[in-house]
Amino acid sequence: MSPKITVELLRQLRQAMRNARYIAEPIQAYIIPSGDAHQSEYIAPCDCRREFICGFNGSAGTAIVTEKHAAMWTDGRYFLQASQQMDNNWTLMKMGLKETPSQEDWLISVLPENSKVGVDPWIIAADQWKNMSKALTSAGHSLVAVQDNLIDAIWTDRPSRPSTPLITLDLTFTGLTWQDKITALRSKMAERKISWFVATALDEIAWLFNLRGSDIEYNPVFFAYAIVGMSTIRLFVDAKRLTRPAVREHLQLDTPPKAEMRIQTAPYESVFTELQAVCASLGPKEKVWVCDKTSCSLMQVIPKAHRAPVPYTPLCLAKAVKNATEIQGMRMAHIKDAVALCELFAWMEKEIPKGTVTEISAADKAEELRSQQKDFVGLSFPSISSVGPNGAIIHYRPLPETNRTLSQNEVYLLDSGAQYMDGTTDVTRTMHFGTPSAYEKETFTYVLKGHIAVSAAVFPNGTKGHLLDSFARQALWESGLDYLHGTGHGVGCFLNVHEGPCGISYKTFADEPLEAGMIVSDEPGYYEDGSFGIRIENVVLVVPANPKYNYRNKGSLTFEPLTLVPIQVKMMDTGLLTQKEVSVCVCVSVCVCVSCFKKHTVH
Amino acid sequence: MSPKITVELLRQLRQAMRNARYIAEPIQAYIIPSGDAHQSEYIAPCDCRREFICGFNGSAGTAIVTEKHAAMWTDGRYFLQASQQMDNNWTLMKMGLKETPSQEDWLISVLPENSKVGVDPWIIAADQWKNMSKALTSAGHSLVAVQDNLIDAIWTDRPSRPSTPLITLDLTFTGLTWQDKITALRSKMAERKISWFVATALDEIAWLFNLRGSDIEYNPVFFAYAIVGMSTIRLFVDAKRLTRPAVREHLQLDTPPKAEMRIQTAPYESVFTELQAVCASLGPKEKVWVCDKTSCSLMQVIPKAHRAPVPYTPLCLAKAVKNATEIQGMRMAHIKDAVALCELFAWMEKEIPKGTVTEISAADKAEELRSQQKDFVGLSFPSISSVGPNGAIIHYRPLPETNRTLSQNEVYLLDSGAQYMDGTTDVTRTMHFGTPSAYEKETFTYVLKGHIAVSAAVFPNGTKGHLLDSFARQALWESGLDYLHGTGHGVGCFLNVHEGPCGISYKTFADEPLEAGMIVSDEPGYYEDGSFGIRIENVVLVVPANPKYNYRNKGSLTFEPLTLVPIQVKMMDTGLLTQKEVSVCVCVSVCVCVSCFKKHTVH
Repeated sequence: MSPKITVELLRQLRQAMRNARYIAEPIQAYIIPSGDAHQSEYIAPCDCRREFICGFNGSAGTAIVTEKHAAMWTDGRYFLQASQQMDNNWTLMKMGLKETPSQEDWLISVLPENSKVGVDPWIIAADQWKNMSKALTSAGHSLVAVQDNLIDAIWTDRPSRPSTPLITLDLTFTGLTWQDKITALRSKMAERKISWFVATALDEIAWLFNLRGSDIEYNPVFFAYAIVGMSTIRLFVDAKRLTRPAVREHLQLDTPPKAEMRIQTAPYESVFTELQAVCASLGPKEKVWVCDKTSCSLMQVIPKAHRAPVPYTPLCLAKAVKNATEIQGMRMAHIKDAVALCELFAWMEKEIPKGTVTEISAADKAEELRSQQKDFVGLSFPSISSVGPNGAIIHYRPLPETNRTLSQNEVYLLDSGAQYMDGTTDVTRTMHFGTPSAYEKETFTYVLKGHIAVSAAVFPNGTKGHLLDSFARQALWESGLDYLHGTGHGVGCFLNVHEGPCGISYKTFADEPLEAGMIVSDEPGYYEDGSFGIRIENVVLVVPANPKYNYRNKGSLTFEPLTLVPIQVKMMDTGLLTQKEVSVCVCVSVCVCVSCFKKHTVH
Repeated sequence: MSPKITVELLRQLRQAMRNARYIAEPIQAYIIPSGDAHQSEYIAPCDCRREFICGFNGSAGTAIVTEKHAAMWTDGRYFLQASQQMDNNWTLMKMGLKETPSQEDWLISVLPENSKVGVDPWIIAADQWKNMSKALTSAGHSLVAVQDNLIDAIWTDRPSRPSTPLITLDLTFTGLTWQDKITALRSKMAERKISWFVATALDEIAWLFNLRGSDIEYNPVFFAYAIVGMSTIRLFVDAKRLTRPAVREHLQLDTPPKAEMRIQTAPYESVFTELQAVCASLGPKEKVWVCDKTSCSLMQVIPKAHRAPVPYTPLCLAKAVKNATEIQGMRMAHIKDAVALCELFAWMEKEIPKGTVTEISAADKAEELRSQQKDFVGLSFPSISSVGPNGAIIHYRPLPETNRTLSQNEVYLLDSGAQYMDGTTDVTRTMHFGTPSAYEKETFTYVLKGHIAVSAAVFPNGTKGHLLDSFARQALWESGLDYLHGTGHGVGCFLNVHEGPCGISYKTFADEPLEAGMIVSDEPGYYEDGSFGIRIENVVLVVPANPKYNYRNKGSLTFEPLTLVPIQVKMMDTGLLTQKEVSVCVCVSVCVCVSCFKKHTVH
């Protein structure tokens, strides 16, 4: 992987930072956040501005360019990758390390007095704007909204915004009609005395209307906004997507339903002026519900006295707890996924000795086998197919220039998943097709012990996922090892493979308590830079547990693995497992030997 | 325990809330925080305003009185106790339960429109003021500073503020002179470009000057403030405490030292006007370092542009990492403490069958035996000596009306500690002097497993204590049990038994990472309301660990128990312990049988 050469781009950006065509007064620094106007984690090519300017294409990272410096902050998953993709003009800021300054502190340390720091208010979240603005102001600087995006200004061949066909999902996939969901939302609004709700997260809008798109690779979402009042529904979306009869029928655009279920549609771009109109007509006590991670632009449209910002919207919370239909769909998706991966591993066992399998061809084969399963839509994220040292790059994606051939001498890590109409999968398996070293087996077994500790954990109702994170690390810590990423994330149902508001990570404290019906991943790992990477990931469903006692009638929860892909026994040092761990393994059927799996496909 | 009758007091307080003598305009609610002007956890009798108004005398709780309602918020340790100490005029707000509103939400739900909520700005922390004020303002109310404390106004026999003699500590106890500490503080100030530091926490001031007092029972501190500049030291303290030659000598008040080490003394009350004077002379870029938990009154003296508030002051951070002398002192204190408690338990084994030992007499005997040890100063907190159902009251304190006789039929819990000149102790042991039931043994053993899991945990340098909290609960959770308090707190060295900035609790996220030299408690528990309580507590020292590997050269830490008091084997269901747990027990010598301990005293 050779770094992107950014000398000329940085020169042009710095010129733009002084150009009166874009800004009234020159700015001394420009922030390029990772996300789009919806604070999406995965973004469309037209929104890959941070990648354009610095070369780093991981899913998380913020670039800041000053007159003299250029720096990019990312987390432990991406340290290696970012250092390989960025040239010497860039300083890699390793988040989570003690010596790494925050963006605010760094800016304050390098900026001349009374500096102006610019950012596009559409792609910075309102809460981030607030924190950044406060820190800069207290140090005598200011944060200014630059309406014309300066990256777009220098990005001559920027792709256009996608507008893919919409997919409608019926009750057999969703369990609830969009009308049911609107009614539930309105009852939450009434409960909290809220007049309007502004939906800006793409997966929340897709979930609410039981629609899917493919505007963003891997995430079946479409660019839209929605504003819901007690008797109004406004959907802001490119008009040409609403021409298909199935979509018009699904949204009941032509058959006038009950007035309060009538959807008024308007162009995507008109959300700003429409929200202004809504806000202009607000009564003195009316409140507008909005996520605090909404773009600064939209947040500022809502007068402060009328804002009711929340870390997680009612849609985010409702979407996280899967209903019976969604759970059944997720189960089916995971059965299909396991079949495809068992076929893959059987194929690999045969092919690898021939020396013809590469990281890319293995990932392609996995996609091919998944695509043969019923209701396959696409992958849920770029496959991390990595062998030997590439496995230590936590969010590695094989490229022609980094592509390695699989052999019987190196550890292979495959983190992959698919979107099926009935559910989303995400699974990581680490295996060896020859004889793993004692050290590889030892570290694999510590990771497995952590994986089992989370998966088998019993905990009281109301427990937040971050309290389970250390269980995943205990065995590694005891041997002086660790991994620099969280242990789990929420998983959508035929939606984003990463979703809030729950997760399992030492890094967050604001996660919502785990509830029966939530679905998260359990994926501890260990990474030996330059050598190998290990990760064992299942998607698990939160289910009620029935331990011996029931303290204060609180009830208990545990996890049930949805992932059914076998874990390679060859990688285990079974002597390090306790009897209990072995029995958990067997009881959740994750330890069956790959070669025992017969080739078969669910249709 | 009969509740305090508060009808008349509430009538008087509500009258004061409308009395123009104290406030320009009537207020609709009055907040009575728990702390004093130094945000102390334990407070002097003159500062026990919340207890005065509602009867509840636990260490944590906030009362709010409106025209119609009276409510008091406290945490899980105190639910039972508070419900017994408060009469029907009060609503107990159980913090940490999902259904309990925050103080802000509750106020907003009960107040008439445009209400004024009053509070004494000296006893509310600046950060609390800020949060409360923001929440009230956003709902159309306001938070107002009431300079005359309204509780003091109706408290006719309020005790006066204590001014006890000061104790000077030499190098053999402290390891560092106060001049060393001032120099270290100033170098931290220079590093962060800070001109002035305001010390308001009593334990920080005592630590800085190597002085102790006895103004607050159990906490060897004295009422004072300090302001330290790069060449100035101001100590605000009652003048008559500075008359003793030993104190004058210690502080070098009469022998003019180097100018920058000269301490200027001033009366305690003059801190406000002196800080005003300091702030008036500040240069445009000068910053004043202050804890964000400082009283609202003092914080507001510092102009906003000059404030540098921090969650933990440099003194708090320096004090937490004990030096070699302090660690040695803590070891000695714990040896002496263990001797006293072994004597106690031997005495109890003999006396209890006679039916003459009560909760109070056992606590008194513990104090008597401790007082025979060298350099004993006093207890470090009120002994929790509780038998049977009283054990389930987490912070129980035996009173004549609740005092139960120990028997061979009930579980006995003793949580107690002492202040010695060389260190502070805090230990809890739970035991049975007859035959414990299978259920008592089972739950005791789960608690023990949690205690061992924390004590034996190995974790990377930089880990925050809250990440270890779940280890203490795992065995309980697996059986559907839990406890409603944190697992550990920082412990001072001949200072407060509770100190920041580290701890082990699911409730905090703002704790500082654990470092070698820090000292915390490890005290999981289990409480069966109306039946018994179990807690096993050691004080443990954070020490470097040497596991097999050293990931990224980060280094690892673990704990070394300082507490040497045996844990009763009779209470254990050893069949529930793993081999590893048994070996940890034996290796830290906590499982030796009480009766094996020979009576002896360290002098």
